[in-house]
Amino acid sequence: MSTLGTRRQVLAASLASGHVAMAMFEDTEGRRDPSIRYFTGHPGDALLFIAADGRSLLVPWDVNMATVMADIEDKVAYTDFKRSPFAAMTGALERLGIEAGSVIDLPSVTPYPMYVDYVEACPDYDFRCTEDGSTKFASSMRAVKDADELAVYRVVSAITDKAMDEIEAGLRSGRLATETDVALFIERFLREHGCEAAGFDTLAAGPSRSFGIHAFPACTAAAFATDGMSILDFGLSYKGYTSDVTMTFVRGPVAGKRAEMIGLVRQAHREAIAACRPGARSRDVAAIADAIFAAKGYTMPHALGHGVGLEAHEAPAVRNREDNDWVLAPGHVITIEPGLYDPLAGGVRLEDDVLITESGAEVLTHARIVELD
Amino acid sequence: MSTLGTRRQVLAASLASGHVAMAMFEDTEGRRDPSIRYFTGHPGDALLFIAADGRSLLVPWDVNMATVMADIEDKVAYTDFKRSPFAAMTGALERLGIEAGSVIDLPSVTPYPMYVDYVEACPDYDFRCTEDGSTKFASSMRAVKDADELAVYRVVSAITDKAMDEIEAGLRSGRLATETDVALFIERFLREHGCEAAGFDTLAAGPSRSFGIHAFPACTAAAFATDGMSILDFGLSYKGYTSDVTMTFVRGPVAGKRAEMIGLVRQAHREAIAACRPGARSRDVAAIADAIFAAKGYTMPHALGHGVGLEAHEAPAVRNREDNDWVLAPGHVITIEPGLYDPLAGGVRLEDDVLITESGAEVLTHARIVELD
Repeated sequence: MSTLGTRRQVLAASLASGHVAMAMFEDTEGRRDPSIRYFTGHPGDALLFIAADGRSLLVPWDVNMATVMADIEDKVAYTDFKRSPFAAMTGALERLGIEAGSVIDLPSVTPYPMYVDYVEACPDYDFRCTEDGSTKFASSMRAVKDADELAVYRVVSAITDKAMDEIEAGLRSGRLATETDVALFIERFLREHGCEAAGFDTLAAGPSRSFGIHAFPACTAAAFATDGMSILDFGLSYKGYTSDVTMTFVRGPVAGKRAEMIGLVRQAHREAIAACRPGARSRDVAAIADAIFAAKGYTMPHALGHGVGLEAHEAPAVRNREDNDWVLAPGHVITIEPGLYDPLAGGVRLEDDVLITESGAEVLTHARIVELD
Repeated sequence: MSTLGTRRQVLAASLASGHVAMAMFEDTEGRRDPSIRYFTGHPGDALLFIAADGRSLLVPWDVNMATVMADIEDKVAYTDFKRSPFAAMTGALERLGIEAGSVIDLPSVTPYPMYVDYVEACPDYDFRCTEDGSTKFASSMRAVKDADELAVYRVVSAITDKAMDEIEAGLRSGRLATETDVALFIERFLREHGCEAAGFDTLAAGPSRSFGIHAFPACTAAAFATDGMSILDFGLSYKGYTSDVTMTFVRGPVAGKRAEMIGLVRQAHREAIAACRPGARSRDVAAIADAIFAAKGYTMPHALGHGVGLEAHEAPAVRNREDNDWVLAPGHVITIEPGLYDPLAGGVRLEDDVLITESGAEVLTHARIVELD
């Protein structure tokens, strides 16, 4: 059986053990879920039904695309269901032979009104929509990267490191001078190196805009890496998996508040990574950075990090919040990205991707805070 | 009162007339809603609460950003609510003085499990989450562009036309040769012309990939506009509002199936636009294209079009489906984008943005199917 088929069997087994007859996954505009790519290879716009007996059905918007990309036995075009998710649900229940009265698991992000419509369309079934259903199970599967996925991460990390080296050289030489220069360099570089896209909108914020956590717009024609602090946050997507790194470029004297912020961010980055190992609670790792900042009167306005994979933000969570009960495990790939922001001094953030190993952690990427001049 | 303040008052009046005390809007990863930008100017990552008495509260992730961008009297940082939407809801009810027992409208995309959590967090209130609530009301407000918005559309349409002219020239001269060349040309061009970003990922699909409705990846290092049919689908975002056009470039003999497909797409584009006027049902407009294709044995695997605005896909719907009851009205800006796709012949699509006027329709952009050589 293919790797993807095996993944579907693992999900099916979880259904059987939970007395759920069928799970639905949905990947559509407004409700993206790369779990369908994870389970089938189909890259987007589809419904996927997996039954507890291991059979499954893909309902793609684009059946030509599915013929090329999807590794799954049974496919029916969404147009055959008149592009209605409720008609597709009805059809899947019949095609997969799901008995009346069975429990059907819906994606946890199913809007409340759609939940009501599924129940009305298929009144003989018992629909469940919870935070603890198949969406979460698939997310937990995806959080632990297997050998194939780790091989992809070695490649994309190396390409990302090379991009960072070339960007630093381009900024030092003056060949790259604006936010747009840097962002477009990345767009061309990634395709020349076999990546499929940026993992998310490249954020290139020059000194006048770096105080924003996520500057808006993501990049402009303005100067980059001129006097002050400039933030570059980008990721490259290779075979669907994205890297996620942030460099800060500082030009001019590093003193006063700016020096303090840079020092604290470097310290938080170093000490948080040192605490990454199997069995550590990711909340405790995040608390290390918060404590370093709090001791000097600073607050970080975002989480310390997050898992990366087919999504730029996925499990496990890496934040210091009561509802975060994730324990780091081998195969997790997370970002560590402490940052501080000040309307006058500007912003500084340093972000790398970290793989949790059997014995500790391996830093996959090599971002840095670069002092120019 | 500012334009944005007036928009909030219109929404507040709809609440009062529906006996709803407060509506919530949410713009966050996974549930983007530019209605918050529409009502406040704040471009992303926030909660917005609007009370029937006209008062409102913005809860931004990035309070520095809100200070610069948001035009609203009352703001509280999301961190003050420990980044919990349920804590923010509790705080907003108190701050806006909403009486116990009142009806609270939630976004229609609120996941079923979150709905349950709001009810648990605020048991004294009557939460509603329906397809006909404030999300839809805001969407309907946004569907009819006001004078300020139409002025933006005149600008972004002109910039888009200029981009199309330059792309055609670049492909004819050979200066642009790959999918990446075209996509990166657009990225640089738009920023040099004051746009903030692409409205969506530019889709540049050369002859080997144009059979896909939305080729994957969106663009690669492969050749573009070589022998066969190549599709270029892009939009430019100016002050948040996006254009959306598609050109097809054909190189080599136009004969046989390819000639038939091109002819049908041009006919569908022309006849559908001719049917656009106030009072026309958008479903009937879409049916014109479907009928033209069906008469020759073709099926279009997507809707004829959609509204554009702060989102690339917004109201009104322009599709031939039973649940589409939109009637075109002055101020609607929609796309008309007939397309046909064949695994061997390739794909052809032609898309323009069309403004519904008092007396008919005005085609804002000027895309075309370009025959090269």
